[in-house]
Amino acid sequence: MRTVYVNGIFCPENQAVVSVFDRGFLFADGVYEVTSVLGGRLIDFSGHMARLRRSLDELSMAAPAGEDELLSIHRQLVDKNGLDEGMIYLQVTRGSADRDFLYPPEDTPASLVLFTQAANLRARPQVQTGIRVVTVPDLRWQRRDIKTVQLLYPSMAKMEAKRRGADDAWLVEDEVVTEGTSNNAYIVSEDGTLITRPLSHSILHGITRTAILRLAAEHGVPVEERPFTVEEAKQSREAFVTSASTFVMPVVQIDEAVIGEGSPGPIARKLRTIYLEEAERTAI
Amino acid sequence: MRTVYVNGIFCPENQAVVSVFDRGFLFADGVYEVTSVLGGRLIDFSGHMARLRRSLDELSMAAPAGEDELLSIHRQLVDKNGLDEGMIYLQVTRGSADRDFLYPPEDTPASLVLFTQAANLRARPQVQTGIRVVTVPDLRWQRRDIKTVQLLYPSMAKMEAKRRGADDAWLVEDEVVTEGTSNNAYIVSEDGTLITRPLSHSILHGITRTAILRLAAEHGVPVEERPFTVEEAKQSREAFVTSASTFVMPVVQIDEAVIGEGSPGPIARKLRTIYLEEAERTAI
Repeated sequence: MRTVYVNGIFCPENQAVVSVFDRGFLFADGVYEVTSVLGGRLIDFSGHMARLRRSLDELSMAAPAGEDELLSIHRQLVDKNGLDEGMIYLQVTRGSADRDFLYPPEDTPASLVLFTQAANLRARPQVQTGIRVVTVPDLRWQRRDIKTVQLLYPSMAKMEAKRRGADDAWLVEDEVVTEGTSNNAYIVSEDGTLITRPLSHSILHGITRTAILRLAAEHGVPVEERPFTVEEAKQSREAFVTSASTFVMPVVQIDEAVIGEGSPGPIARKLRTIYLEEAERTAI
Repeated sequence: MRTVYVNGIFCPENQAVVSVFDRGFLFADGVYEVTSVLGGRLIDFSGHMARLRRSLDELSMAAPAGEDELLSIHRQLVDKNGLDEGMIYLQVTRGSADRDFLYPPEDTPASLVLFTQAANLRARPQVQTGIRVVTVPDLRWQRRDIKTVQLLYPSMAKMEAKRRGADDAWLVEDEVVTEGTSNNAYIVSEDGTLITRPLSHSILHGITRTAILRLAAEHGVPVEERPFTVEEAKQSREAFVTSASTFVMPVVQIDEAVIGEGSPGPIARKLRTIYLEEAERTAI
């Protein structure tokens, strides 16, 4: 049984509980991060902590602990669960208080929950085959740059993808792709330019996205940050998504349209390899 | 200390907990209802149960219990807490499962939580003075007809109202008012017509709204269901909001604009009186 961290206590997962008055449960008033673990070490931890700080700041939410303490908790969870490869999930909420839309007093302690999930991140079979995505309307709220637990719609969209025989959904607003349900979306145009939507309130500011755009530029792949339409994506040479837990995942079909040769493209494969090399080299 | 209901157990509120793996906590994958209590009896209970069924259906979520059992739990909570006047909050989530955007197996038991909140619903001082609202952009998701716990933005909007010295916020999209943070919004035009936005995915399908529109028509108040702009609202003769816990609450100021005489208008006062008479007569 996994050991889970809840508000200062390491406990068996079946004893890991929060109050029903937790604002994470009643108001989705909470934010999260997912950090990947490879060989027992954390990938891009400082990037996740920087984004966590930003999410907390945007919501005027207090930090539950300093970065050193959060690092220590991550490492203790890796140890206690013998985690070699997988993810560590971290969630912070505005704490417990009698139900009121108004925030509780500022000295209300934040809730902090972390748990591990073992997974074969490097050797996912889908890396070889690529994934198929379907497009669905993007009905989420307008501050997707804040990594909140308001994940019902992404969850619904993923179920819709499954119902339609696909692996994931791309979310579409005003005819352009915003992002995937839990990842950023990219295409490669006929002339080999990597295209992805620029940062704004409309998409999550992916930690992996930042690394991929830097690595692409460093390795001579031209990058253009602009929105792209579904039609453009269907005619692209390559497509892929990035996230902290899938790294770079090739997309080989969008709705009924087969992308490129219907197999993972060379730029996606190259970026995945380069990213993983750097991630493992810089893991802590 | 209050007695709270959690998944089949009545327990003291400080022992009322859910798993950190509850999908309500991790994904905001849950819906809720708030039923008012007057004189120890439930107001429009069947209306709340019908809306709960609809919310569950829209999300392909299983009902946690039959309506008779839910009624029994409500009544037991009223008894155990000696609740004369206030609200009963009910939340259903898709249950606990290892974190995955895909829904867990269909036989995963739903989570069911209910608790009471004592409040002076009839004698709120604001009924005499009216409330002041500010307008803020409506950044919520596009399925506001489903009563989910994705309440972070309404919570943020209410805090913004407080910062600006007001009591609540009206949410604005494409220059028209959608609704309040936790209530439906109405204005009365110069010719005495009651105007409120029609039902759609853009607003909550208020239980009190249904009753108020029926009562208005029965008492000779012309009703027009159409969107209204912020400018129109600022020039209206009267304004008010309705919800299960505030019934009919007059609005006397919108941003800097004083509405009517700056005091509760006659139509709002009349509808509140008529509504409360019927609510108490039909309470169970």
